[in-house]
Amino acid sequence: MNTQKNLDRLARLCVQFGLGLRPGQELVLTADIGAIDLVRRITREAYAAGASNVLALYADDESTLARYTHGSETALETAPGWLYDAMAGAFRNGAARLAIAGNTPGLLAGQDPAKVARANKAMSSAARPMLEAITSGATNWNIVPFVTEGWARQVFPDLAPDAAVERLWGHVFAALRLDRDDPVAAWRENFAELERRRAHLQGLALDALHFEGGGTDLTVGLARGHKWVGGAQTLEDGTTYAPNLPTEEIFTMPDRARTEGRAVFTKPAVIGGSIVEGLVVTFEAGRAVSIEAEKGGDVAREYFTTDEGASFLGEVALVPESSPIARSGVLYFNTLFDENAACHIAFGNAYAMNLSEGADPEEAGMNKSNIHMDCMIGSPAIAVTGIGPDGARHPIMADGEFVI
Amino acid sequence: MNTQKNLDRLARLCVQFGLGLRPGQELVLTADIGAIDLVRRITREAYAAGASNVLALYADDESTLARYTHGSETALETAPGWLYDAMAGAFRNGAARLAIAGNTPGLLAGQDPAKVARANKAMSSAARPMLEAITSGATNWNIVPFVTEGWARQVFPDLAPDAAVERLWGHVFAALRLDRDDPVAAWRENFAELERRRAHLQGLALDALHFEGGGTDLTVGLARGHKWVGGAQTLEDGTTYAPNLPTEEIFTMPDRARTEGRAVFTKPAVIGGSIVEGLVVTFEAGRAVSIEAEKGGDVAREYFTTDEGASFLGEVALVPESSPIARSGVLYFNTLFDENAACHIAFGNAYAMNLSEGADPEEAGMNKSNIHMDCMIGSPAIAVTGIGPDGARHPIMADGEFVI
Ligand SMILES: [Zn+2]
Ligand SMILES: [Zn+2]
Ligand SMILES: [Zn+2]
Ligand SMILES: [Zn+2]
Repeated sequence: MNTQKNLDRLARLCVQFGLGLRPGQELVLTADIGAIDLVRRITREAYAAGASNVLALYADDESTLARYTHGSETALETAPGWLYDAMAGAFRNGAARLAIAGNTPGLLAGQDPAKVARANKAMSSAARPMLEAITSGATNWNIVPFVTEGWARQVFPDLAPDAAVERLWGHVFAALRLDRDDPVAAWRENFAELERRRAHLQGLALDALHFEGGGTDLTVGLARGHKWVGGAQTLEDGTTYAPNLPTEEIFTMPDRARTEGRAVFTKPAVIGGSIVEGLVVTFEAGRAVSIEAEKGGDVAREYFTTDEGASFLGEVALVPESSPIARSGVLYFNTLFDENAACHIAFGNAYAMNLSEGADPEEAGMNKSNIHMDCMIGSPAIAVTGIGPDGARHPIMADGEFVI
Repeated sequence: MNTQKNLDRLARLCVQFGLGLRPGQELVLTADIGAIDLVRRITREAYAAGASNVLALYADDESTLARYTHGSETALETAPGWLYDAMAGAFRNGAARLAIAGNTPGLLAGQDPAKVARANKAMSSAARPMLEAITSGATNWNIVPFVTEGWARQVFPDLAPDAAVERLWGHVFAALRLDRDDPVAAWRENFAELERRRAHLQGLALDALHFEGGGTDLTVGLARGHKWVGGAQTLEDGTTYAPNLPTEEIFTMPDRARTEGRAVFTKPAVIGGSIVEGLVVTFEAGRAVSIEAEKGGDVAREYFTTDEGASFLGEVALVPESSPIARSGVLYFNTLFDENAACHIAFGNAYAMNLSEGADPEEAGMNKSNIHMDCMIGSPAIAVTGIGPDGARHPIMADGEFVI
């Protein structure tokens, strides 16, 4: 495997296909400082594509930790809102947004969960205007992964660090179709398939989805006027972009008040740097009324009560078990991958793009929150049934695979 | 030399003495990515001192170069003004400002000077509101040095890179008084001496300074109501801080229209990453009417015509040849050091702090520009004479040393 060459191909894929960067457009990217090699390749690629400016904002694990190890109580509740506001303004003025996702999972595992929750709350509240600018369709955006040693060691704890990094890059490049002769053609093909199923589900105009199997028995009521979304997005000016790379999901908006039953989560969730395993949640009238976990239950309960909306759902998504990521059999401890390996629901904020034009958010039951946390419920045991407004039952997935 | 220990002492000096960071105050710092080791120490030190938030914004040589090697013409004229505006807002709202100066000198030496000048102009124009927020006394700020390999190799080209880095750190630590038992006490002593001379010069109420020796014969008319400044600064709320560490200068504001004669510059100037050597400038009625150099003359002429004010002076400063930095005999290719080794004048923007309260900036002849470039004229051959409003001549320096 030629990692250098593949990183260049990743930079090109992300600028030209993922972002669809326009000549003259500004690019604002965020990355962990460990991903600087990819940042530099993307910067060159973006300038070559005609970017007017490329600005990289870096996060650093050690500085993140210093807030907990050396910071005051005030520091835990402070976030640089002025910076997020300024970024929101830049996106509204047309700057493209790229996030390189390469954090160290479990970084904050040794910290007090209550402190982690307070810091997360301050951060997500400050970042909210920025999140809204991005998700409201103001600009083209893209998230791509970067393999850090911390991530690789967690995924492959039995390998030497170098070998773990190389093995994980191998899976990441495969998931990104960078092992194909023509990655962009491969993505176009995948997006066509996503679009076919998306249109089919939209045509069914369902009232709810029922997930059953492996201990899960969950009915997710869908928002009135819900819109199924997946694969590529298009801005008003015609710019086409792919928010997530890799992406295998089609997803829509739940009615916040109409989720009922029990969800057994099939993969760990990484919440503010802590890992939550064996999560089981019971819903009544949309609210998570019982949150239990084998590990990290306190972190989950804190996080899902960050604000009122954090206990309700903002997204429901379908992913077949035959997706390349699921087939790799690897547990990635990383939402960008694990959410594309399995059907999932998300606690917290709903995406405006999942509501049809003219639909009333209030009436539809659109959820609002400062958080958005995807949690996986898919497995080879899961069956998904669509329930029409008339009560008719439409088989959607069986044994974890689409039947549409 | 224990570099690790001295870096910790540098972090402490800069947070506690240089910045005078207040508990609950936010800190915004900028650094080259190569200085991350010091950034992390400062971050921990700042949180320990009660910082509410520490935000680090990083620059990266390779990304800076990519603008020239891969960018469009538009990219050369674009700067992220929205980010500088947001930073200006943060400083006005009380955030402290720390700059870690550790750029690679000569980084852009291979680039087209016209392109470098255009990019510098765009950048300094965008950064102006931020510069004004800082220099108007809105907040406490501090600049400290960091040794990069590129810098060390330029200063000590005959040493192996590791040895050059260690040698330069040795000089930097000494200039910062970190080789003393009590660096803060040493700085307090130095600042008392600066204050004594500052008060003396202020009391003389001079009309002009005359520099003579080594080919220089230059009269710098001083602004009516000029204020001599040096060493520590104090905010309205009583916070005391030292803008530059190290610092050995006392400086004031020229009348933009009253500089006459010839200045032979005694150290190279680094302009937007290019090095200008053997600079000789002739002034008439304040304006630089002839700009010649042995090397980099084009860069200098471009830069000093960035805007109208760039051809006029904004600062004049006195530094004795016996300053620890001058005595090291090292040419640092770095303004923070070289300007503290020699008397200098600065092209471009004047500092509001160099004007007495109530003085009219227009009448005083205060210069305005998007640039501020210090250029050294001091040497063991220089004599400085103060000229009173009545024409009386007051000896200030002889053979490069203070006689007051
Ligand atoms: Zn999803
Ligand atoms: Zn989601
Ligand atoms: Zn100066
Ligand atoms: Zn200066």
